[in-house]
Amino acid sequence: MSDIFRFGVSLPRTLIEKFDKLIKDNKYTNRSEALRDMIRQELIKKEWQEGKETVGAITLIYNHNKRDILNKITDTQHDFQKEIISTQHIHLDHDNCLEIVAVKGNSKKIIDLTNTLKSINGIKHTTLSMSSTGENIE
Amino acid sequence: MSDIFRFGVSLPRTLIEKFDKLIKDNKYTNRSEALRDMIRQELIKKEWQEGKETVGAITLIYNHNKRDILNKITDTQHDFQKEIISTQHIHLDHDNCLEIVAVKGNSKKIIDLTNTLKSINGIKHTTLSMSSTGENIE
Amino acid sequence: MSDIFRFGVSLPRTLIEKFDKLIKDNKYTNRSEALRDMIRQELIKKEWQEGKETVGAITLIYNHNKRDILNKITDTQHDFQKEIISTQHIHLDHDNCLEIVAVKGNSKKIIDLTNTLKSINGIKHTTLSMSSTGENIE
Amino acid sequence: MSDIFRFGVSLPRTLIEKFDKLIKDNKYTNRSEALRDMIRQELIKKEWQEGKETVGAITLIYNHNKRDILNKITDTQHDFQKEIISTQHIHLDHDNCLEIVAVKGNSKKIIDLTNTLKSINGIKHTTLSMSSTGENIE
Repeated sequence: MSDIFRFGVSLPRTLIEKFDKLIKDNKYTNRSEALRDMIRQELIKKEWQEGKETVGAITLIYNHNKRDILNKITDTQHDFQKEIISTQHIHLDHDNCLEIVAVKGNSKKIIDLTNTLKSINGIKHTTLSMSSTGENIE
Repeated sequence: MSDIFRFGVSLPRTLIEKFDKLIKDNKYTNRSEALRDMIRQELIKKEWQEGKETVGAITLIYNHNKRDILNKITDTQHDFQKEIISTQHIHLDHDNCLEIVAVKGNSKKIIDLTNTLKSINGIKHTTLSMSSTGENIE
Repeated sequence: MSDIFRFGVSLPRTLIEKFDKLIKDNKYTNRSEALRDMIRQELIKKEWQEGKETVGAITLIYNHNKRDILNKITDTQHDFQKEIISTQHIHLDHDNCLEIVAVKGNSKKIIDLTNTLKSINGIKHTTLSMSSTGENIE
Repeated sequence: MSDIFRFGVSLPRTLIEKFDKLIKDNKYTNRSEALRDMIRQELIKKEWQEGKETVGAITLIYNHNKRDILNKITDTQHDFQKEIISTQHIHLDHDNCLEIVAVKGNSKKIIDLTNTLKSINGIKHTTLSMSSTGENIE
Protein backbone atom coordinates (compact mmCIF):
# COMPACT_ATOMS: atom_id res chain seq x y z
CA MET A 1 0.00 0.00 0.00
CA SER A 2 1.43 3.37 -0.97
CA ASP A 3 1.83 6.49 1.14
CA ILE A 4 -1.23 8.51 1.97
CA PHE A 5 -1.23 12.01 0.52
CA ARG A 6 -3.38 14.80 1.93
CA PHE A 7 -4.56 17.95 0.15
CA GLY A 8 -7.18 20.65 0.65
CA VAL A 9 -10.38 21.06 -1.33
CA SER A 10 -12.42 24.29 -1.53
CA LEU A 11 -16.19 24.10 -1.83
CA PRO A 12 -18.99 26.63 -1.39
CA ARG A 13 -20.71 25.99 1.96
CA THR A 14 -24.08 25.20 0.31
CA LEU A 15 -22.45 22.57 -1.87
CA ILE A 16 -20.63 20.87 0.98
CA GLU A 17 -23.87 20.62 2.97
CA LYS A 18 -25.61 18.84 0.09
CA PHE A 19 -22.58 16.64 -0.47
CA ASP A 20 -22.56 15.60 3.20
CA LYS A 21 -26.22 14.60 2.94
CA LEU A 22 -25.45 12.57 -0.19
CA ILE A 23 -22.55 10.82 1.58
CA LYS A 24 -24.80 9.91 4.49
CA ASP A 25 -27.53 8.58 2.16
CA ASN A 26 -24.93 6.45 0.42
CA LYS A 27 -23.54 5.21 3.75
CA TYR A 28 -19.98 6.43 3.21
CA THR A 29 -18.05 6.92 6.46
CA ASN A 30 -16.35 10.15 5.38
CA ARG A 31 -15.79 12.58 2.50
CA SER A 32 -12.42 11.14 1.50
CA GLU A 33 -13.92 7.70 0.94
CA ALA A 34 -16.72 9.14 -1.22
CA LEU A 35 -14.27 11.21 -3.29
CA ARG A 36 -11.88 8.26 -3.70
CA ASP A 37 -14.78 6.25 -5.12
CA MET A 38 -15.66 8.97 -7.64
CA ILE A 39 -12.02 9.30 -8.72
CA ARG A 40 -11.56 5.54 -9.13
CA GLN A 41 -14.74 5.35 -11.18
CA GLU A 42 -13.35 7.95 -13.62
CA LEU A 43 -9.99 6.17 -13.85
CA ILE A 44 -11.62 2.82 -14.61
CA LYS A 45 -13.82 4.37 -17.32
CA LYS A 46 -10.62 5.63 -18.94
CA GLU A 47 -8.85 2.22 -18.69
CA TRP A 48 -11.73 0.65 -20.63
CA GLN A 49 -11.74 3.33 -23.31
CA GLU A 50 -7.99 3.07 -23.83
CA GLY A 51 -7.84 -0.71 -24.28
CA LYS A 52 -5.83 -1.39 -21.12
CA GLU A 53 -5.46 -4.71 -19.25
CA THR A 54 -8.59 -4.96 -17.17
CA VAL A 55 -11.09 -7.20 -15.36
CA GLY A 56 -14.82 -7.75 -15.78
CA ALA A 57 -17.80 -10.02 -15.36
CA ILE A 58 -20.11 -11.12 -18.16
CA THR A 59 -23.60 -12.33 -17.22
CA LEU A 60 -25.67 -14.54 -19.51
CA ILE A 61 -29.31 -15.58 -19.15
CA TYR A 62 -30.41 -18.47 -21.36
CA ASN A 63 -32.81 -21.35 -21.66
CA HIS A 64 -30.63 -24.47 -21.56
CA ASN A 65 -33.27 -26.44 -23.51
CA LYS A 66 -32.68 -24.31 -26.58
CA ARG A 67 -31.16 -26.56 -29.22
CA ASP A 68 -27.38 -26.46 -29.41
CA ILE A 69 -27.01 -23.48 -27.11
CA LEU A 70 -24.62 -25.17 -24.66
CA ASN A 71 -22.28 -26.13 -27.49
CA LYS A 72 -22.29 -22.63 -28.92
CA ILE A 73 -21.51 -21.04 -25.55
CA THR A 74 -18.73 -23.52 -24.84
CA ASP A 75 -17.21 -23.09 -28.31
CA THR A 76 -17.09 -19.32 -27.88
CA GLN A 77 -15.60 -19.57 -24.43
CA HIS A 78 -12.84 -21.79 -25.79
CA ASP A 79 -12.00 -19.17 -28.43
CA PHE A 80 -11.40 -16.71 -25.59
CA GLN A 81 -9.71 -19.16 -23.22
CA LYS A 82 -6.93 -16.69 -22.46
CA GLU A 83 -9.39 -14.07 -21.21
CA ILE A 84 -11.72 -16.32 -19.19
CA ILE A 85 -10.74 -16.98 -15.58
CA SER A 86 -13.70 -18.99 -14.33
CA THR A 87 -17.44 -19.42 -14.65
CA GLN A 88 -20.23 -19.57 -12.08
CA HIS A 89 -23.42 -21.34 -13.17
CA ILE A 90 -26.80 -20.98 -11.44
CA HIS A 91 -30.06 -22.81 -12.22
CA LEU A 92 -32.65 -20.04 -11.89
CA ASP A 93 -35.65 -22.25 -12.60
CA HIS A 94 -36.53 -25.33 -14.63
CA ASP A 95 -35.55 -23.61 -17.90
CA ASN A 96 -33.42 -20.54 -17.19
CA CYS A 97 -29.72 -20.44 -16.34
CA LEU A 98 -27.58 -17.56 -15.11
CA GLU A 99 -23.93 -17.89 -16.07
CA ILE A 100 -21.37 -15.38 -14.79
CA VAL A 101 -18.03 -15.39 -16.56
CA ALA A 102 -15.09 -13.74 -14.77
CA VAL A 103 -12.72 -12.26 -17.37
CA LYS A 104 -9.30 -10.59 -17.39
CA GLY A 105 -7.49 -9.15 -20.39
CA ASN A 106 -7.43 -6.34 -22.92
CA SER A 107 -10.65 -4.30 -22.66
CA LYS A 108 -11.30 -4.43 -26.43
CA LYS A 109 -10.95 -8.23 -26.40
CA ILE A 110 -13.42 -8.52 -23.50
CA ILE A 111 -15.95 -6.32 -25.32
CA ASP A 112 -15.50 -8.53 -28.39
CA LEU A 113 -16.19 -11.67 -26.33
CA THR A 114 -19.31 -10.05 -24.85
CA ASN A 115 -20.67 -9.18 -28.31
CA THR A 116 -19.96 -12.67 -29.58
CA LEU A 117 -21.88 -14.24 -26.69
CA LYS A 118 -24.70 -11.68 -27.03
CA SER A 119 -25.28 -12.63 -30.67
CA ILE A 120 -25.81 -16.34 -29.94
CA ASN A 121 -29.39 -17.21 -30.78
CA GLY A 122 -31.09 -18.31 -27.54
CA ILE A 123 -29.12 -16.15 -25.14
CA LYS A 124 -31.81 -13.88 -23.75
CA HIS A 125 -29.69 -11.24 -22.10
CA THR A 126 -26.04 -10.32 -21.70
CA THR A 127 -24.38 -7.70 -19.52
CA LEU A 128 -20.77 -6.67 -19.10
CA SER A 129 -19.51 -5.25 -15.80
CA MET A 130 -16.48 -3.08 -16.43
CA SER A 131 -14.24 -3.37 -13.40
CA SER A 132 -10.48 -3.24 -12.94
CA THR A 133 -7.38 -5.25 -12.01
CA GLY A 134 -7.25 -3.05 -8.93
CA GLU A 135 -3.51 -2.46 -9.51
CA ASN A 136 -3.82 1.12 -10.63
CA ILE A 137 -6.56 2.32 -8.35
CA GLU A 138 -5.24 1.82 -4.87
CA MET B 1 -22.41 33.35 -3.59
CA SER B 2 -21.95 31.51 -0.30
CA ASP B 3 -18.83 31.21 1.86
CA ILE B 4 -16.06 28.96 0.71
CA PHE B 5 -15.41 25.99 2.95
CA ARG B 6 -12.10 24.13 2.96
CA PHE B 7 -11.46 20.56 4.08
CA GLY B 8 -8.72 17.92 3.72
CA VAL B 9 -8.92 14.80 1.56
CA SER B 10 -6.66 11.74 1.99
CA LEU B 11 -5.64 9.73 -1.06
CA PRO B 12 -2.99 7.08 -1.69
CA ARG B 13 -0.09 8.68 -3.58
CA THR B 14 -0.54 6.41 -6.62
CA LEU B 15 -4.19 7.42 -6.90
CA ILE B 16 -3.48 11.15 -6.66
CA GLU B 17 -0.89 10.89 -9.45
CA LYS B 18 -3.40 9.26 -11.78
CA PHE B 19 -6.07 11.74 -10.77
CA ASP B 20 -3.75 14.66 -11.57
CA LYS B 21 -3.14 13.23 -15.04
CA LEU B 22 -6.90 12.86 -15.57
CA ILE B 23 -7.45 16.48 -14.48
CA LYS B 24 -4.84 17.67 -16.93
CA ASP B 25 -6.34 15.62 -19.79
CA ASN B 26 -9.73 17.12 -19.00
CA LYS B 27 -8.28 20.65 -18.84
CA TYR B 28 -9.36 21.40 -15.28
CA THR B 29 -7.28 24.12 -13.61
CA ASN B 30 -7.08 22.41 -10.22
CA ARG B 31 -8.27 19.46 -8.14
CA SER B 32 -11.01 21.42 -6.36
CA GLU B 33 -12.66 22.33 -9.64
CA ALA B 34 -12.59 18.71 -10.85
CA LEU B 35 -14.04 17.45 -7.56
CA ARG B 36 -16.73 20.15 -7.51
CA ASP B 37 -17.82 18.97 -10.96
CA MET B 38 -18.07 15.34 -9.83
CA ILE B 39 -20.07 16.32 -6.75
CA ARG B 40 -22.48 18.53 -8.71
CA GLN B 41 -23.02 15.71 -11.21
CA GLU B 42 -24.10 13.40 -8.38
CA LEU B 43 -26.41 16.02 -6.88
CA ILE B 44 -28.12 16.69 -10.21
CA LYS B 45 -28.64 12.97 -10.81
CA LYS B 46 -30.42 12.84 -7.47
CA GLU B 47 -32.60 15.90 -8.25
CA TRP B 48 -33.89 14.16 -11.38
CA GLN B 49 -34.60 10.89 -9.56
CA GLU B 50 -36.51 12.64 -6.79
CA GLY B 51 -38.83 14.66 -9.04
CA LYS B 52 -37.44 18.06 -8.03
CA GLU B 53 -37.82 21.38 -9.91
CA THR B 54 -35.19 21.22 -12.60
CA VAL B 55 -33.99 22.40 -16.03
CA GLY B 56 -33.26 20.56 -19.25
CA ALA B 57 -33.00 20.64 -23.02
CA ILE B 58 -34.91 18.36 -25.38
CA THR B 59 -33.54 17.88 -28.90
CA LEU B 60 -35.70 16.71 -31.79
CA ILE B 61 -34.64 15.69 -35.29
CA TYR B 62 -37.42 15.45 -37.85
CA ASN B 63 -38.28 15.78 -41.52
CA HIS B 64 -40.58 18.79 -41.76
CA ASN B 65 -42.13 17.38 -44.97
CA LYS B 66 -43.65 14.51 -43.04
CA ARG B 67 -47.42 14.99 -43.14
CA ASP B 68 -48.90 16.72 -40.13
CA ILE B 69 -45.71 16.58 -38.06
CA LEU B 70 -45.52 20.32 -37.37
CA ASN B 71 -49.08 20.33 -36.03
CA LYS B 72 -48.40 17.35 -33.79
CA ILE B 73 -45.24 18.91 -32.33
CA THR B 74 -46.96 22.25 -31.74
CA ASP B 75 -49.99 20.61 -30.14
CA THR B 76 -47.78 18.69 -27.71
CA GLN B 77 -45.75 21.76 -26.86
CA HIS B 78 -48.95 23.63 -26.02
CA ASP B 79 -50.00 20.87 -23.62
CA PHE B 80 -46.73 21.49 -21.76
CA GLN B 81 -46.75 25.28 -22.07
CA LYS B 82 -45.91 25.71 -18.39
CA GLU B 83 -42.69 23.67 -18.72
CA ILE B 84 -41.42 25.06 -22.03
CA ILE B 85 -39.29 28.21 -21.84
CA SER B 86 -38.27 28.68 -25.48
CA THR B 87 -37.39 26.82 -28.64
CA GLN B 88 -34.44 27.08 -31.01
CA HIS B 89 -35.04 25.83 -34.56
CA ILE B 90 -32.28 24.98 -37.06
CA HIS B 91 -32.67 23.92 -40.70
CA LEU B 92 -30.04 21.18 -41.02
CA ASP B 93 -30.62 20.52 -44.71
CA HIS B 94 -33.48 20.62 -47.21
CA ASP B 95 -35.49 18.07 -45.23
CA ASN B 96 -34.15 17.76 -41.69
CA CYS B 97 -34.77 20.11 -38.77
CA LEU B 98 -33.11 20.27 -35.36
CA GLU B 99 -35.35 21.72 -32.69
CA ILE B 100 -34.00 22.35 -29.18
CA VAL B 101 -36.60 22.94 -26.49
CA ALA B 102 -35.43 24.59 -23.25
CA VAL B 103 -37.55 23.30 -20.36
CA LYS B 104 -37.95 24.05 -16.66
CA GLY B 105 -40.22 22.25 -14.21
CA ASN B 106 -40.79 19.04 -12.29
CA SER B 107 -38.39 16.37 -13.54
CA LYS B 108 -41.16 13.75 -13.96
CA LYS B 109 -43.19 16.19 -16.06
CA ILE B 110 -40.17 16.91 -18.30
CA ILE B 111 -39.56 13.18 -18.81
CA ASP B 112 -43.26 12.80 -19.69
CA LEU B 113 -42.99 15.60 -22.30
CA THR B 114 -39.88 13.97 -23.77
CA ASN B 115 -41.63 10.60 -24.13
CA THR B 116 -44.67 12.23 -25.72
CA LEU B 117 -42.53 13.98 -28.32
CA LYS B 118 -40.47 10.82 -28.90
CA SER B 119 -43.57 8.81 -29.78
CA ILE B 120 -44.71 11.20 -32.54
CA ASN B 121 -44.51 9.35 -35.85
CA GLY B 122 -41.94 11.17 -37.99
CA ILE B 123 -39.66 12.40 -35.22
CA LYS B 124 -36.44 10.54 -35.99
CA HIS B 125 -34.57 11.08 -32.75
CA THR B 126 -35.11 12.65 -29.33
CA THR B 127 -32.68 13.31 -26.51
CA LEU B 128 -33.13 14.81 -23.05
CA SER B 129 -30.29 16.67 -21.35
CA MET B 130 -30.78 16.53 -17.60
CA SER B 131 -29.37 19.74 -16.18
CA SER B 132 -30.31 21.88 -13.18
CA THR B 133 -31.74 25.23 -12.07
CA GLY B 134 -28.28 25.95 -10.73
CA GLU B 135 -29.77 27.12 -7.43
CA ASN B 136 -28.71 24.15 -5.37
CA ILE B 137 -25.32 23.44 -6.89
CA GLU B 138 -23.34 26.58 -6.31
CA MET C 1 -38.04 10.06 -48.63
CA SER C 2 -36.95 6.57 -49.67
CA ASP C 3 -39.09 3.53 -50.43
CA ILE C 4 -40.68 1.69 -47.57
CA PHE C 5 -39.44 -1.86 -47.09
CA ARG C 6 -41.45 -4.48 -45.23
CA PHE C 7 -40.13 -7.64 -43.55
CA GLY C 8 -41.34 -10.20 -41.02
CA VAL C 9 -40.14 -10.53 -37.41
CA SER C 10 -40.58 -13.65 -35.26
CA LEU C 11 -41.14 -13.29 -31.54
CA PRO C 12 -42.33 -15.66 -28.81
CA ARG C 13 -45.95 -14.80 -27.95
CA THR C 14 -45.08 -13.91 -24.33
CA LEU C 15 -42.46 -11.43 -25.51
CA ILE C 16 -44.74 -9.74 -28.01
CA GLU C 17 -47.40 -9.25 -25.31
CA LYS C 18 -44.92 -7.50 -23.03
CA PHE C 19 -43.57 -5.47 -25.93
CA ASP C 20 -47.08 -4.29 -26.83
CA LYS C 21 -47.61 -3.13 -23.26
CA LEU C 22 -44.29 -1.25 -23.38
CA ILE C 23 -45.27 0.41 -26.67
CA LYS C 24 -48.57 1.53 -25.17
CA ASP C 25 -46.88 2.91 -22.04
CA ASN C 26 -44.48 4.85 -24.26
CA LYS C 27 -47.35 6.14 -26.42
CA TYR C 28 -46.07 4.73 -29.72
CA THR C 29 -48.81 4.26 -32.32
CA ASN C 30 -47.53 0.92 -33.60
CA ARG C 31 -44.73 -1.66 -33.38
CA SER C 32 -42.92 -0.42 -36.49
CA GLU C 33 -42.55 3.07 -35.03
CA ALA C 34 -41.15 1.70 -31.74
CA LEU C 35 -38.70 -0.57 -33.58
CA ARG C 36 -37.60 2.24 -35.92
CA ASP C 37 -36.78 4.34 -32.84
CA MET C 38 -34.67 1.56 -31.31
CA ILE C 39 -32.79 1.02 -34.58
CA ARG C 40 -32.11 4.73 -35.08
CA GLN C 41 -30.83 4.99 -31.51
CA GLU C 42 -28.28 2.23 -32.22
CA LEU C 43 -27.19 3.85 -35.50
CA ILE C 44 -26.67 7.24 -33.85
CA LYS C 45 -24.61 5.68 -31.04
CA LYS C 46 -22.36 4.23 -33.72
CA GLU C 47 -22.05 7.55 -35.61
CA TRP C 48 -20.73 9.19 -32.44
CA GLN C 49 -18.26 6.39 -31.73
CA GLU C 50 -16.88 6.47 -35.26
CA GLY C 51 -16.24 10.22 -35.43
CA LYS C 52 -18.81 10.92 -38.14
CA GLU C 53 -20.39 14.29 -39.06
CA THR C 54 -23.09 14.76 -36.49
CA VAL C 55 -25.33 17.17 -34.57
CA GLY C 56 -25.76 17.89 -30.88
CA ALA C 57 -26.73 20.31 -28.15
CA ILE C 58 -24.48 21.42 -25.31
CA THR C 59 -26.13 22.83 -22.18
CA LEU C 60 -24.27 25.06 -19.72
CA ILE C 61 -25.40 26.28 -16.31
CA TYR C 62 -23.37 29.13 -14.83
CA ASN C 63 -23.49 32.14 -12.57
CA HIS C 64 -22.93 35.14 -14.83
CA ASN C 65 -21.55 37.16 -11.88
CA LYS C 66 -18.53 34.88 -11.66
CA ARG C 67 -15.50 36.96 -12.63
CA ASP C 68 -14.45 36.66 -16.25
CA ILE C 69 -16.75 33.75 -17.03
CA LEU C 70 -18.51 35.41 -19.97
CA ASN C 71 -15.17 36.16 -21.65
CA LYS C 72 -13.95 32.62 -21.16
CA ILE C 73 -17.13 31.10 -22.63
CA THR C 74 -17.08 33.48 -25.60
CA ASP C 75 -13.38 32.85 -26.26
CA THR C 76 -13.94 29.09 -26.31
CA GLN C 77 -16.96 29.39 -28.58
CA HIS C 78 -14.89 31.42 -31.04
CA ASP C 79 -12.25 28.68 -31.14
CA PHE C 80 -15.01 26.31 -32.28
CA GLN C 81 -16.79 28.76 -34.57
CA LYS C 82 -17.01 26.19 -37.35
CA GLU C 83 -18.92 23.73 -35.16
CA ILE C 84 -21.30 26.15 -33.43
CA ILE C 85 -24.57 26.91 -35.25
CA SER C 86 -26.38 29.13 -32.74
CA THR C 87 -26.89 29.70 -29.04
CA GLN C 88 -30.01 30.07 -26.92
CA HIS C 89 -29.60 31.96 -23.63
CA ILE C 90 -32.07 31.84 -20.73
CA HIS C 91 -31.95 33.81 -17.45
CA LEU C 92 -33.01 31.18 -14.91
CA ASP C 93 -32.91 33.52 -11.92
CA HIS C 94 -30.98 36.55 -10.72
CA ASP C 95 -27.66 34.67 -10.87
CA ASN C 96 -28.01 31.52 -12.96
CA CYS C 97 -27.99 31.26 -16.74
CA LEU C 98 -28.84 28.33 -19.00
CA GLU C 99 -27.07 28.44 -22.33
CA ILE C 100 -27.84 25.86 -25.02
CA VAL C 101 -25.36 25.63 -27.87
CA ALA C 102 -26.51 23.92 -31.08
CA VAL C 103 -23.52 22.22 -32.73
CA LYS C 104 -22.80 20.39 -35.98
CA GLY C 105 -19.52 18.76 -36.99
CA ASN C 106 -17.19 15.87 -36.36
CA SER C 107 -18.27 14.00 -33.22
CA LYS C 108 -14.74 14.01 -31.71
CA LYS C 109 -14.52 17.79 -32.21
CA ILE C 110 -17.89 18.30 -30.48
CA ILE C 111 -16.80 16.16 -27.53
CA ASP C 112 -13.60 18.23 -27.34
CA LEU C 113 -15.62 21.47 -27.26
CA THR C 114 -17.85 20.05 -24.50
CA ASN C 115 -14.83 19.11 -22.37
CA THR C 116 -13.26 22.52 -22.88
CA LEU C 117 -16.43 24.29 -21.74
CA LYS C 118 -16.87 21.86 -18.83
CA SER C 119 -13.42 22.69 -17.46
CA ILE C 120 -14.08 26.46 -17.25
CA ASN C 121 -14.04 27.47 -13.61
CA GLY C 122 -17.51 28.77 -12.76
CA ILE C 123 -19.51 26.61 -15.14
CA LYS C 124 -21.59 24.55 -12.75
CA HIS C 125 -22.85 21.86 -15.09
CA THR C 126 -22.44 20.76 -18.70
CA THR C 127 -24.30 18.16 -20.71
CA LEU C 128 -23.95 16.97 -24.28
CA SER C 129 -26.92 15.61 -26.21
CA MET C 130 -25.72 13.27 -28.92
CA SER C 131 -28.15 13.57 -31.81
CA SER C 132 -27.74 13.29 -35.58
CA THR C 133 -27.85 15.19 -38.86
CA GLY C 134 -30.92 13.11 -39.65
CA GLU C 135 -29.53 12.34 -43.10
CA ASN C 136 -28.68 8.72 -42.43
CA ILE C 137 -31.57 7.75 -40.23
CA GLU C 138 -34.63 8.29 -42.33
CA MET D 1 -41.31 -22.34 -24.77
CA SER D 2 -44.31 -20.38 -26.01
CA ASP D 3 -45.68 -20.12 -29.55
CA ILE D 4 -43.81 -18.05 -32.07
CA PHE D 5 -45.70 -15.03 -33.33
CA ARG D 6 -44.86 -13.32 -36.61
CA PHE D 7 -45.64 -9.75 -37.65
CA GLY D 8 -44.54 -7.28 -40.32
CA VAL D 9 -42.34 -4.24 -39.76
CA SER D 10 -42.11 -1.27 -42.15
CA LEU D 11 -38.81 0.56 -42.54
CA PRO D 12 -37.46 3.06 -45.07
CA ARG D 13 -35.03 1.26 -47.39
CA THR D 14 -32.07 3.43 -46.33
CA LEU D 15 -32.68 2.57 -42.67
CA ILE D 16 -32.92 -1.16 -43.28
CA GLU D 17 -29.61 -1.13 -45.17
CA LYS D 18 -27.84 0.53 -42.25
CA PHE D 19 -29.55 -1.79 -39.80
CA ASP D 20 -28.39 -4.84 -41.76
CA LYS D 21 -24.80 -3.57 -41.60
CA LEU D 22 -25.14 -3.05 -37.84
CA ILE D 23 -26.50 -6.59 -37.42
CA LYS D 24 -23.57 -8.01 -39.35
CA ASP D 25 -21.04 -6.01 -37.32
CA ASN D 26 -22.65 -7.30 -34.13
CA LYS D 27 -22.63 -10.88 -35.45
CA TYR D 28 -26.39 -11.44 -35.19
CA THR D 29 -27.65 -14.19 -37.49
CA ASN D 30 -30.84 -12.36 -38.52
CA ARG D 31 -32.99 -9.28 -37.96
CA SER D 32 -35.44 -11.04 -35.63
CA GLU D 33 -32.65 -11.99 -33.24
CA ALA D 34 -31.31 -8.42 -33.18
CA LEU D 35 -34.78 -6.97 -32.57
CA ARG D 36 -35.58 -9.53 -29.86
CA ASP D 37 -32.40 -8.44 -28.06
CA MET D 38 -33.38 -4.76 -28.21
CA ILE D 39 -36.89 -5.53 -26.94
CA ARG D 40 -35.64 -7.68 -24.07
CA GLN D 41 -33.18 -4.95 -23.06
CA GLU D 42 -36.06 -2.46 -22.75
CA LEU D 43 -38.20 -4.91 -20.76
CA ILE D 44 -35.38 -5.62 -18.30
CA LYS D 45 -34.72 -1.91 -17.80
CA LYS D 46 -38.37 -1.56 -16.84
CA GLU D 47 -38.27 -4.54 -14.43
CA TRP D 48 -35.43 -2.86 -12.53
CA GLN D 49 -37.18 0.51 -12.38
CA GLU D 50 -40.41 -1.03 -11.10
CA GLY D 51 -38.88 -3.03 -8.25
CA LYS D 52 -39.70 -6.45 -9.69
CA GLU D 53 -38.12 -9.81 -8.77
CA THR D 54 -34.89 -9.89 -10.70
CA VAL D 55 -31.35 -11.26 -11.01
CA GLY D 56 -27.96 -9.59 -11.06
CA ALA D 57 -24.24 -9.83 -10.43
CA ILE D 58 -22.28 -7.56 -8.12
CA THR D 59 -18.51 -7.29 -8.67
CA LEU D 60 -16.15 -6.12 -5.94
CA ILE D 61 -12.44 -5.28 -6.21
CA TYR D 62 -10.59 -5.01 -2.91
CA ASN D 63 -7.23 -5.41 -1.24
CA HIS D 64 -7.68 -8.32 1.17
CA ASN D 65 -4.85 -6.97 3.38
CA LYS D 66 -6.93 -3.96 4.30
CA ARG D 67 -7.71 -4.26 8.00
CA ASP D 68 -11.07 -5.81 8.81
CA ILE D 69 -12.33 -5.74 5.22
CA LEU D 70 -13.14 -9.45 5.03
CA ASN D 71 -15.27 -9.23 8.18
CA LYS D 72 -17.15 -6.22 6.89
CA ILE D 73 -17.92 -7.87 3.55
CA THR D 74 -19.04 -11.08 5.22
CA ASP D 75 -21.23 -9.24 7.73
CA THR D 76 -22.98 -7.35 4.93
CA GLN D 77 -23.49 -10.46 2.88
CA HIS D 78 -25.12 -12.15 5.88
CA ASP D 79 -27.57 -9.25 6.21
CA PHE D 80 -28.66 -9.95 2.64
CA GLN D 81 -28.55 -13.75 2.87
CA LYS D 82 -31.96 -14.07 1.24
CA GLU D 83 -30.80 -12.22 -1.90
CA ILE D 84 -27.35 -13.80 -2.32
CA ILE D 85 -27.21 -17.04 -4.29
CA SER D 86 -23.46 -17.70 -4.43
CA THR D 87 -20.08 -16.00 -4.63
CA GLN D 88 -17.12 -16.51 -6.94
CA HIS D 89 -13.74 -15.36 -5.59
CA ILE D 90 -10.64 -14.74 -7.72
CA HIS D 91 -7.13 -13.78 -6.56
CA LEU D 92 -6.10 -11.19 -9.15
CA ASP D 93 -2.61 -10.65 -7.74
CA HIS D 94 -0.84 -10.70 -4.37
CA ASP D 95 -3.11 -7.98 -3.00
CA ASN D 96 -6.21 -7.61 -5.14
CA CYS D 97 -9.31 -9.81 -5.11
CA LEU D 98 -12.25 -9.93 -7.49
CA GLU D 99 -15.43 -11.17 -5.88
CA ILE D 100 -18.56 -11.72 -7.98
CA VAL D 101 -21.80 -12.10 -6.05
CA ALA D 102 -24.77 -13.67 -7.87
CA VAL D 103 -28.01 -12.16 -6.53
CA LYS D 104 -31.74 -12.75 -6.96
CA GLY D 105 -34.55 -10.73 -5.39
CA ASN D 106 -36.38 -7.44 -5.42
CA SER D 107 -34.48 -4.93 -7.57
CA LYS D 108 -34.58 -2.20 -4.88
CA LYS D 109 -33.12 -4.61 -2.32
CA ILE D 110 -30.30 -5.57 -4.70
CA ILE D 111 -29.47 -1.90 -5.32
CA ASP D 112 -29.44 -1.38 -1.55
CA LEU D 113 -26.99 -4.28 -1.10
CA THR D 114 -24.75 -2.87 -3.85
CA ASN D 115 -24.65 0.57 -2.18
CA THR D 116 -23.89 -0.97 1.20
CA LEU D 117 -20.95 -2.93 -0.22
CA LYS D 118 -19.75 0.10 -2.21
CA SER D 119 -19.51 2.24 0.93
CA ILE D 120 -17.21 -0.19 2.77
CA ASN D 121 -13.85 1.51 3.26
CA GLY D 122 -11.27 -0.51 1.33
CA ILE D 123 -13.50 -1.75 -1.47
CA LYS D 124 -11.94 -0.08 -4.50
CA HIS D 125 -14.68 -0.61 -7.04
CA THR D 126 -18.20 -2.00 -7.23
CA THR D 127 -20.42 -2.68 -10.22
CA LEU D 128 -23.94 -4.02 -10.53
CA SER D 129 -25.05 -5.94 -13.62
CA MET D 130 -28.79 -5.64 -14.01
CA SER D 131 -30.01 -8.86 -15.57
CA SER D 132 -33.25 -10.82 -15.27
CA THR D 133 -34.82 -14.05 -14.01
CA GLY D 134 -35.38 -14.87 -17.67
CA GLU D 135 -38.98 -15.85 -16.91
CA ASN D 136 -40.59 -12.85 -18.56
CA ILE D 137 -38.31 -12.38 -21.51
CA GLU D 138 -38.59 -15.60 -23.46
